[in-house]
Amino acid sequence: MFIRDAWYVGAWSHELDTTSMMSRRLLGDNVLFFRTTGGSIAAIRDRCSHRFAPLSMGRREGDCVRCMYHGLVFDADGKCVEEPGRKGVSPNTDVRSYPTVERYKQVWIWMGDPAKADASLIPDCHYQDDPAWASIPAYIHYKADYRLILDNLLDFSHLTYVHENTLGGSATIAHIRPKVERNGDTVRLTRWYLGEPGIAPYLNGFGTFEGPVDRWHIYELHIPGNVFLMDSGSAPAGSGAPEGRRVDEAMQFRATQIVTPEDEQNSHFFWSYAHNFNIGDEDFTRKLAARIAEGFEEDRLMIEAQQDEVNRSPNDKMAFIIADNGLALGRRIIDERLAAEQVAAG
Amino acid sequence: MFIRDAWYVGAWSHELDTTSMMSRRLLGDNVLFFRTTGGSIAAIRDRCSHRFAPLSMGRREGDCVRCMYHGLVFDADGKCVEEPGRKGVSPNTDVRSYPTVERYKQVWIWMGDPAKADASLIPDCHYQDDPAWASIPAYIHYKADYRLILDNLLDFSHLTYVHENTLGGSATIAHIRPKVERNGDTVRLTRWYLGEPGIAPYLNGFGTFEGPVDRWHIYELHIPGNVFLMDSGSAPAGSGAPEGRRVDEAMQFRATQIVTPEDEQNSHFFWSYAHNFNIGDEDFTRKLAARIAEGFEEDRLMIEAQQDEVNRSPNDKMAFIIADNGLALGRRIIDERLAAEQVAAG
Amino acid sequence: MFIRDAWYVGAWSHELDTTSMMSRRLLGDNVLFFRTTGGSIAAIRDRCSHRFAPLSMGRREGDCVRCMYHGLVFDADGKCVEEPGRKGVSPNTDVRSYPTVERYKQVWIWMGDPAKADASLIPDCHYQDDPAWASIPAYIHYKADYRLILDNLLDFSHLTYVHENTLGGSATIAHIRPKVERNGDTVRLTRWYLGEPGIAPYLNGFGTFEGPVDRWHIYELHIPGNVFLMDSGSAPAGSGAPEGRRVDEAMQFRATQIVTPEDEQNSHFFWSYAHNFNIGDEDFTRKLAARIAEGFEEDRLMIEAQQDEVNRSPNDKMAFIIADNGLALGRRIIDERLAAEQVAAG
Ligand code: FES
Ligand code: FES
Ligand code: FES
Repeated sequence: MFIRDAWYVGAWSHELDTTSMMSRRLLGDNVLFFRTTGGSIAAIRDRCSHRFAPLSMGRREGDCVRCMYHGLVFDADGKCVEEPGRKGVSPNTDVRSYPTVERYKQVWIWMGDPAKADASLIPDCHYQDDPAWASIPAYIHYKADYRLILDNLLDFSHLTYVHENTLGGSATIAHIRPKVERNGDTVRLTRWYLGEPGIAPYLNGFGTFEGPVDRWHIYELHIPGNVFLMDSGSAPAGSGAPEGRRVDEAMQFRATQIVTPEDEQNSHFFWSYAHNFNIGDEDFTRKLAARIAEGFEEDRLMIEAQQDEVNRSPNDKMAFIIADNGLALGRRIIDERLAAEQVAAG
Repeated sequence: MFIRDAWYVGAWSHELDTTSMMSRRLLGDNVLFFRTTGGSIAAIRDRCSHRFAPLSMGRREGDCVRCMYHGLVFDADGKCVEEPGRKGVSPNTDVRSYPTVERYKQVWIWMGDPAKADASLIPDCHYQDDPAWASIPAYIHYKADYRLILDNLLDFSHLTYVHENTLGGSATIAHIRPKVERNGDTVRLTRWYLGEPGIAPYLNGFGTFEGPVDRWHIYELHIPGNVFLMDSGSAPAGSGAPEGRRVDEAMQFRATQIVTPEDEQNSHFFWSYAHNFNIGDEDFTRKLAARIAEGFEEDRLMIEAQQDEVNRSPNDKMAFIIADNGLALGRRIIDERLAAEQVAAG
Repeated sequence: MFIRDAWYVGAWSHELDTTSMMSRRLLGDNVLFFRTTGGSIAAIRDRCSHRFAPLSMGRREGDCVRCMYHGLVFDADGKCVEEPGRKGVSPNTDVRSYPTVERYKQVWIWMGDPAKADASLIPDCHYQDDPAWASIPAYIHYKADYRLILDNLLDFSHLTYVHENTLGGSATIAHIRPKVERNGDTVRLTRWYLGEPGIAPYLNGFGTFEGPVDRWHIYELHIPGNVFLMDSGSAPAGSGAPEGRRVDEAMQFRATQIVTPEDEQNSHFFWSYAHNFNIGDEDFTRKLAARIAEGFEEDRLMIEAQQDEVNRSPNDKMAFIIADNGLALGRRIIDERLAAEQVAAG
């Protein structure tokens, strides 16, 4: 079950720069993306209306795609514009097209009711293309339902255990209680860990200061679209970070993590991890991203194993623990939206 | 859903020459073929009546097969003729046998009501063993329902696109309207392409004449059994081919393509491509077959990709285009036969 | 469908000696085994109560296991004893634990009603750790339902065919009629083959005497738990074996073969093959086991192929032959027990 009325990330912009067409399964359907000669992004169903051949096995002809089975031609809006052997085209030959917006180095796609595709609903992910911040666009494929990944993002107590030697490195993370707030369909969590003895393992060798640390994770998950935006960092203990002062030595990060369902059992995970120090040092940006990726692999292994067990136990109830209020709020919002879409669908 | 009252090709004759037994899944059931000492072909269910061990894991003993699990012995008619430890055999121990006919270098099998297995119903495929024609027996396995393969054979507009650089090579093929005729359960298509600038790419280097070409595809699909028989060729433009005159320079071919369902998602494709020039030049026969096989690979890739999409969209309707009358007629005949068999089955 | 109120073998004892934890799927559920510091065996569901992460991805902490997703800690009884961030633990956080008994070098587990887990119900498998007998603990994984393996054990007519060149070597085995007895939920079979010309192929080179042979297979299958215990051997013909005299030259064996369902389509097969001659000659013990394993591979190939056919024919009836009385009795007992458990479950 997917929320359809939402802006999802379908691709990184750069993925469409070096290929004439790209097919990706989103919300259970195969979508064909391509960049037109004018530079805009077309997204149409990757399934010929005629006998369901994949259009991705077809051929770009200008801003159109020719199905290379029997030759129908579709334009960037999915309209069938040529049928061999006749003037005009037969009825019902158009394929579905999807509204897209290219923003923050990403291609956003709306797979629900096109009338509702208001670009102003796209969350602000500007750290991905703000020159004051540096990051690398990255991608992970998950063999897991998107909700298990969101659960993970909404419960950072896992940093202590899953990421003991990478992103975590402190038992405090599992022991403090975050502030959890709901704002419309957004879940906001605030977590401060004050006076920790040192920086997290993944920052070893990158430190900008020595001694005890105030760490924080302040993040929002925008449920429709599954856009997770995080302000995190480490500052010298007592330098005023909780009060809003971010001294020069503070190591600040802005993570963007976006989960797009591929189908009921698979997900796409688009991420970047921006830093505002060492700007221009591409080697640092790459090394930081590699450390983060290592941590994310730990998540993936755990979540895919969890998915196996969930599949074996479809009717069993999970226990609710004290760390679950963020995760439970996220699930509630998803369920509300799914129910609302079902009602709207009649 | 398979039409059962039909002669299907189960094997090439030569496949049974170098093995004591061969198992092949046909219409969802495993069938064991073997050649008796008298040279006839036995075809029995490849499943012991006792505990369903495959008889293909058994042993030939004369014209019988011994199940090597607990030792029951079956003759070439599937009759259980020995049960260890007793005189005679227990009841209900026979396995099903199937009528077969060996003809045109192929083994034909009837998996429906044996009372209806009239050998005169087998279509004439004599080009496969006529000394005036040369060909090589060939086989392709398809991960696709047989109907998608028949669709392909009944709509040659695909030659222009799928086989642009091999069997096709001309936009005309997609643009002309074939003559489509029904004759009982046979679909007949006639396609002429007159005054084409040159021969098809797959014939490059094989040409027997130069200059413009009259090409044709005249073929029949015999629906029960899925036997596709084609008269095709290229002659000097204006040399009278459409009127029935086939001059010596004409390159004539007789293709036999037979689709036998393996199960709901897989098919066997037996084919040969006979030529009546360069007879005795085995190297030519081999090279021609290799070029055809290259084209058939293009079909296979497209059809298997199509099958994936069809499986994902079981309830969606395909669009009907102008090229579809052959294909639609084929589907109609299949549906009629399937319905008739269901009525007969009560 | 599994009988749950039974002692099953979950592991060889030694498997738990060199690992901190071991997960194995039994009766469709993943079970986590570990040896406590006191040496006893813990067996708990390998699924965290919280979000179903596998506990086998967790960490041993003393006699407890910490889930390395969000940090819940479980003791050897499955009781949740620590939840990060709070005193005590949330409700419903315990995981299921299973009674175990370590006996005969094996770990026995009871996955049904724990109140019925009476250790005295475990069949006597003492040949596995009796110093007068030597054997090697062995294991085979089967892609087959446990019942097909029991069928095999209950019908030794298959030795003549499946094991023609290994364990069998005599047509007599398939031709004699065994004595079949029921004793509660145990099936007992007695088979004597007197005056055979020689020993079985698998004993070639191991013979302790020459000339004609009296062979026997006397075995019991204890249905709940699927414990197969066999007294078999070869003695000089006429030396009195059938009357109970076992002369020194007799080659005597005690086989223990235990089938534990993994899930509906897979099984665990734990076996040993004890001999009471050449004691202390480890090379002989190994060679003997290797010969037996070769024979068991023949079974596995046949049974897995049979399972494929059974899956394709779920509604077809198997024929009943004269050799089937042991097998049929086994099936009847299984069905009785399954029905009784279903009635008890309401
Ligand atoms: S499937 Fe695309 S034109 Fe036929
Ligand atoms: S399965 Fe063939 S004889 Fe038993
Ligand atoms: S899944 Fe085990 S503690 Fe959360």
